[in-house]
Amino acid sequence: MALPEPPYIAVYITSILSDDLDGYDELNDQMVKLSEEQPGYLGRESLPGEGNEERVVIYWRDLESLKGWRLHPEHQVAMRAGRERYYTSYDIRVTRVEREYGFRRDPAG
Amino acid sequence: MALPEPPYIAVYITSILSDDLDGYDELNDQMVKLSEEQPGYLGRESLPGEGNEERVVIYWRDLESLKGWRLHPEHQVAMRAGRERYYTSYDIRVTRVEREYGFRRDPAG
Repeated sequence: MALPEPPYIAVYITSILSDDLDGYDELNDQMVKLSEEQPGYLGRESLPGEGNEERVVIYWRDLESLKGWRLHPEHQVAMRAGRERYYTSYDIRVTRVEREYGFRRDPAG
Repeated sequence: MALPEPPYIAVYITSILSDDLDGYDELNDQMVKLSEEQPGYLGRESLPGEGNEERVVIYWRDLESLKGWRLHPEHQVAMRAGRERYYTSYDIRVTRVEREYGFRRDPAG
């Protein structure tokens, strides 16, 4: 996934799944597809989780595009289903990426 | 770990460990202890990783306190050891936490 130069928005979501997951995968796939069509959507990444924990990071151009998604009517219905059935808890952290850098060992070094 | 209200800084670090880890745990423990003594340090969290991947989030009051830590002479020596011996690669993302919220299912619901 190619991300632009910072700044951009990274939303870190950690969810604990309930044991009532009938229809969850379909709804989740729908929401992934719908989010990909939204202006300002940049991508998503799954992170390792433990047990029935799901971790994902979703990237947006700016806070305005994230707000548009949060207020999308179909997404609002899905979020309600999440709170009522699919998740026992979740935590959402909205961050602004200030800078990024990395290191790769020289293979000849 | 009690974090303050946003804004604060969250530094996401993903490292791939090499197979030359002699002395790594000791150096890592020293750096954790030293970082905890720095002004503006707020805490750290390990995240699940896969294989020889290490994931950690370190929290700072602001970019100035993070900069102080980055320039700390003992930390600079440790970072060099990391690049020369202990890590084959790492990725660092410096983020500013804009807001956080969560949901807990009502146990009686």
